[in-house]
Amino acid sequence: MSEKVLLAHATAFNQNLSCFLYGPGEAKYEDRAVPEISDPYDVIIRINYVGVCGSDVHWWLHGSIGAHSILPGRPLVLGHEASGTIHTIGPSVSTLSPGDRVALEPGFPCRRCARCKEGRYNLCKEMTFAACPPDAHGTLCKYFKLPEDYCFKLPESVSLEEGVLVEPASVAVHMARLVDVRVGQSVVVFGSGTVGLLCGAVARAFGASKVVLVDILERKLEFARKFVGGCGTFMPDSKVSAEENAARLIQEHGLDDGADVVMEASGAEPSVQTGIHVLRVGGSYVQGGLGKNIINFPIVAMSEKELTMKGCFRYSSGDFKLALGLISEGKLSVKELITKKVEFGKAVEAWETTRKGEGIKTLIRGIRD
Amino acid sequence: MSEKVLLAHATAFNQNLSCFLYGPGEAKYEDRAVPEISDPYDVIIRINYVGVCGSDVHWWLHGSIGAHSILPGRPLVLGHEASGTIHTIGPSVSTLSPGDRVALEPGFPCRRCARCKEGRYNLCKEMTFAACPPDAHGTLCKYFKLPEDYCFKLPESVSLEEGVLVEPASVAVHMARLVDVRVGQSVVVFGSGTVGLLCGAVARAFGASKVVLVDILERKLEFARKFVGGCGTFMPDSKVSAEENAARLIQEHGLDDGADVVMEASGAEPSVQTGIHVLRVGGSYVQGGLGKNIINFPIVAMSEKELTMKGCFRYSSGDFKLALGLISEGKLSVKELITKKVEFGKAVEAWETTRKGEGIKTLIRGIRD
Amino acid sequence: MSEKVLLAHATAFNQNLSCFLYGPGEAKYEDRAVPEISDPYDVIIRINYVGVCGSDVHWWLHGSIGAHSILPGRPLVLGHEASGTIHTIGPSVSTLSPGDRVALEPGFPCRRCARCKEGRYNLCKEMTFAACPPDAHGTLCKYFKLPEDYCFKLPESVSLEEGVLVEPASVAVHMARLVDVRVGQSVVVFGSGTVGLLCGAVARAFGASKVVLVDILERKLEFARKFVGGCGTFMPDSKVSAEENAARLIQEHGLDDGADVVMEASGAEPSVQTGIHVLRVGGSYVQGGLGKNIINFPIVAMSEKELTMKGCFRYSSGDFKLALGLISEGKLSVKELITKKVEFGKAVEAWETTRKGEGIKTLIRGIRD
Amino acid sequence: MSEKVLLAHATAFNQNLSCFLYGPGEAKYEDRAVPEISDPYDVIIRINYVGVCGSDVHWWLHGSIGAHSILPGRPLVLGHEASGTIHTIGPSVSTLSPGDRVALEPGFPCRRCARCKEGRYNLCKEMTFAACPPDAHGTLCKYFKLPEDYCFKLPESVSLEEGVLVEPASVAVHMARLVDVRVGQSVVVFGSGTVGLLCGAVARAFGASKVVLVDILERKLEFARKFVGGCGTFMPDSKVSAEENAARLIQEHGLDDGADVVMEASGAEPSVQTGIHVLRVGGSYVQGGLGKNIINFPIVAMSEKELTMKGCFRYSSGDFKLALGLISEGKLSVKELITKKVEFGKAVEAWETTRKGEGIKTLIRGIRD
Repeated sequence: MSEKVLLAHATAFNQNLSCFLYGPGEAKYEDRAVPEISDPYDVIIRINYVGVCGSDVHWWLHGSIGAHSILPGRPLVLGHEASGTIHTIGPSVSTLSPGDRVALEPGFPCRRCARCKEGRYNLCKEMTFAACPPDAHGTLCKYFKLPEDYCFKLPESVSLEEGVLVEPASVAVHMARLVDVRVGQSVVVFGSGTVGLLCGAVARAFGASKVVLVDILERKLEFARKFVGGCGTFMPDSKVSAEENAARLIQEHGLDDGADVVMEASGAEPSVQTGIHVLRVGGSYVQGGLGKNIINFPIVAMSEKELTMKGCFRYSSGDFKLALGLISEGKLSVKELITKKVEFGKAVEAWETTRKGEGIKTLIRGIRD
Repeated sequence: MSEKVLLAHATAFNQNLSCFLYGPGEAKYEDRAVPEISDPYDVIIRINYVGVCGSDVHWWLHGSIGAHSILPGRPLVLGHEASGTIHTIGPSVSTLSPGDRVALEPGFPCRRCARCKEGRYNLCKEMTFAACPPDAHGTLCKYFKLPEDYCFKLPESVSLEEGVLVEPASVAVHMARLVDVRVGQSVVVFGSGTVGLLCGAVARAFGASKVVLVDILERKLEFARKFVGGCGTFMPDSKVSAEENAARLIQEHGLDDGADVVMEASGAEPSVQTGIHVLRVGGSYVQGGLGKNIINFPIVAMSEKELTMKGCFRYSSGDFKLALGLISEGKLSVKELITKKVEFGKAVEAWETTRKGEGIKTLIRGIRD
Repeated sequence: MSEKVLLAHATAFNQNLSCFLYGPGEAKYEDRAVPEISDPYDVIIRINYVGVCGSDVHWWLHGSIGAHSILPGRPLVLGHEASGTIHTIGPSVSTLSPGDRVALEPGFPCRRCARCKEGRYNLCKEMTFAACPPDAHGTLCKYFKLPEDYCFKLPESVSLEEGVLVEPASVAVHMARLVDVRVGQSVVVFGSGTVGLLCGAVARAFGASKVVLVDILERKLEFARKFVGGCGTFMPDSKVSAEENAARLIQEHGLDDGADVVMEASGAEPSVQTGIHVLRVGGSYVQGGLGKNIINFPIVAMSEKELTMKGCFRYSSGDFKLALGLISEGKLSVKELITKKVEFGKAVEAWETTRKGEGIKTLIRGIRD
Repeated sequence: MSEKVLLAHATAFNQNLSCFLYGPGEAKYEDRAVPEISDPYDVIIRINYVGVCGSDVHWWLHGSIGAHSILPGRPLVLGHEASGTIHTIGPSVSTLSPGDRVALEPGFPCRRCARCKEGRYNLCKEMTFAACPPDAHGTLCKYFKLPEDYCFKLPESVSLEEGVLVEPASVAVHMARLVDVRVGQSVVVFGSGTVGLLCGAVARAFGASKVVLVDILERKLEFARKFVGGCGTFMPDSKVSAEENAARLIQEHGLDDGADVVMEASGAEPSVQTGIHVLRVGGSYVQGGLGKNIINFPIVAMSEKELTMKGCFRYSSGDFKLALGLISEGKLSVKELITKKVEFGKAVEAWETTRKGEGIKTLIRGIRD
């Protein structure tokens, strides 16, 4: 069945058409039941836009990420960056009404474990997160269910397209808060993809005095220089050591004894190494990028400089609210990141666009009536 | 000149006989000038005991540590764990008097840089630290000079021998404070040498509920079980992966979702890896041990569990005071660690004892009159 | 109807006999429905012991506390310190079984608001807390309902009587964590009632080197000296100023430049004032006691010494677990605090005992079959 | 001797003409010795501008502040807000040269005590601070001596007049750091004098989303609205309670459950009270203003909302650097605060201008050659 036929069919039934991944390179649009309010605080959202993230492409290409795989006969609806419009609300919902435009925080925790109660719910073992097999379907569908408190009402000034970007912006906010970016600090960001760019811009919004973005592609650095006000950029030389790249970065950008903060958003081994060497004694580092599981790591340098390193997993308490606040107040501009929009039935085209590294962020429109 | 002759000679002149290292395996006792009070807050200490640390042995064997080497014609006096008796005081000294017994914090900073002023003076670039070439001689001498505030008066209840152990205990205290060991936590310590043992005991004194010490030598674990009250021990299996060792450690010691805290005091690559895997999500890790500069490191596990990792360099504000306080109050017992004492002229014997792994801590007596 | 008759009656029906307060001095035992599992994580607890707290006596005498009052025709079941035995469990409960002995954390939050999600659920505006009018009845009943995660299983070594004390111990733990009591610190506790005594003992368990308990009754200080190992005590002179009392306390207990930490557990105006003056520059203070709404407060001294002051409300994330852990491990002994036990029908006797200041903690037994 | 004569005389000798306060209302310009380099890190600064602060006026009117008084026969040189030009440097000075324009941090600590070493040198008991009797003279002179690291080189873009404002800006920065103002927070500032205005602007620079300045004078609020970009203002009604003013402030400025942060820069009792009531549960408060020693304080509200309160004393590690950085980067504009400049010999006129509340900040020029 062609996509066109399928979509016509689905619209006829007006149910919950969704884009299922069956395995590497194998996606199908299929109808399924509209979710139902089961908890009095639930809301049903009509999806308006879904963003494509590098992890979606990884799913699309490999049918898996890390330890998670699509199981035979258990296709998975992808998508976790999304905005939408409130469709139905549960009886206890008090802060949202049908018609409200919202950004979606696409995972919610058990609310009862030690991690949830101490304010780090992203570390909850029972998290229900969009597009996590086997059971948690993603947002590439018509209707999606979330608890009220995981939906963030967009103010007039923020469009539904921009609303999609609250999710990656929250990743950057979470990183900035973990590594405690402070007014007046110097921050080096490794990787100038969506998250890296947002890290740079968020570091600025947090008051960083100097921000340097690093990438191995000049066109990415060129975009970075426009996107992150007043930032510097640096292209490492792959033929020299991490120490040498770090020394040149420090020298070219006048970082004195080294950077105060490193935000790693590439996952590349040389970036991690250079990040450690670029920090001043007592500096702080957050690892946002995911790459190889095991890397060569300069542990003695990390130890002797008495660095603080933070792992980073998604986002947690207060991140979505703060990210949306920064966008609403104009401290963070995200619309420049949206470089393409495709119709709901064109998810494969969207993934392929991202796979080829074309543009920054591609959005998939929600299904139209 | 034999040691005996040299010592006799030195005593005759009653100057400042010191043990100089000229290079790998080449040590000589030579006289030199008694230090003079140059700052009004200086004190001159008559050394009573010097402890042997693994780093002394490394100097002795290699004539270098990391980037630091003994230069030709610039022999270095070793020793940085020491206790002594106040001999002379500068005109502004108000808290010490000649005859006071003290533990020595063997390095002092510039007091003016950003790191000094923010309370992390151990990261001062202008630190003067005992036994750092080319100029900062160590404590293996008769008289040693320090600022008043880097000498810690021993209470009646603490012997000069125990006073030497305040230095390694401060390393453990610094690690415990960096990683923020809290009442009720579970702590796994990698390495059961002097610092590892002290980490375990300090974790206990900080209120840790469960402490597990790890080592690859059963005799060390046997000592650990006696030294750290109520601790568990674990011997990793070198034939299985770090994940497998971590899983077994967690299971054998009932650590539920993993340990709250890891204190790494071995520097061994498999320990670092196992340490990362043994932690619960959101756990904390401090790297105290120094081994290979570059290791294979499970960066994705560190990141996805959102761990906090801290480097660690010596000790800093408040560590010596707290370490001595724990010893004075009986919360930390160190005398069991002292397994051998040799005369001043027998430094080589002391280093060789440590090199062979005999006992725990060997002390070198200060020169007698 | 006499109490005896009422109790016989109640037992006959074997329902949920409860002790209702109708207003000042007016309590009645009345039957009511056994609570039913409404959330799959709920448990029903058969109450074994209920402790009497000063706030119960305040309710008994005044029919109100602060802004909260018993409304006409809306009698309130008192009691919030309790232990019990699991009677029934909801279908999703996985960590508790009928017959398990538990300490009760007697309030649970909405789990959805900003405060809940950031780990400070005690500040949730929608908290359901035992014995808060108009609707949240307390634990002086036969059966009480809580979410699973607000029940703490007692280990073999902790009796149901001791289990009641986990609640006030959690108050002390919460205070100690808020004010960040650290190993080696000096701590002065104002007030030597149940909470003050527990503050002193918890400060010890957290590693405080010096603990001084303050009260205006010598018999309380005498008890304190037995209860808190190695503590000092201080009786203020009501005829001199707060500064003078503070100066004498500092001098008598060798606190050098003042205490590191003050835990205020009396709510008395002179205690607050003396607490501020007894601290060293940069010291920390937590206000646990509740007294007059408005007091004369030395704001300039607070400011110029750059103190940190913390308010304190009940307990929050991790406090019950840690308090029970301290008791289980023998780091905190609470049984000495239990000075009287009365039968279920004798709540008024229990309140009067506490009102008269007889003993420390009176327990009311749960109704027997 | 008239001022004119005195100045002519002083210039003739070209020594270190200084403005001495002998007691209330009694000031004299007198010559004294030029300070000499005594420590190798000392510098001698030729003073260019001195700002007038409320505390100077208090000295001028009362001859005392708090516990400090001018002693008979021990006149005191006033002034502690100052900029100048490096005149001479000690032999170890490496970061400054004669001719460099600097802002002065007008006090330096012992560098050896526990407070200095933990990074809170403002709490050092042996602080040498400008214009503190009996011995520490202030900056109203020709030449002033400081350690190198307490002078902050002005970049080209910052004038010597603006350099004077680094001192009060550092007070605001210290307050903002103590109370930990974060991106996205709501901040209410009490008092719209120099420090209050700077608190508002610094809170903005730290990323606060909402800033409300409070004062009882409409003209101050009018200035505040121009000075602090996008801030709100509030004039309390002195006829209603602190609770009522707080409720109205919250309502008028849409602060939901209350403000996240209060910065108190007035010292007025009603401001302190309103500040406590205006905070949300779990909010933070810093007391910068100094007024009556003892005030009526709503301790129960502070406790039950579990607030964090911080005292505040001058400025400390990193504050001057950050304040100057904010000014240099254009995140904080201070020149609007300078409303009058007088010649060196007109200190009394400058104090009287401030006493009458005319303008915001009056500067006294350094003596001309």
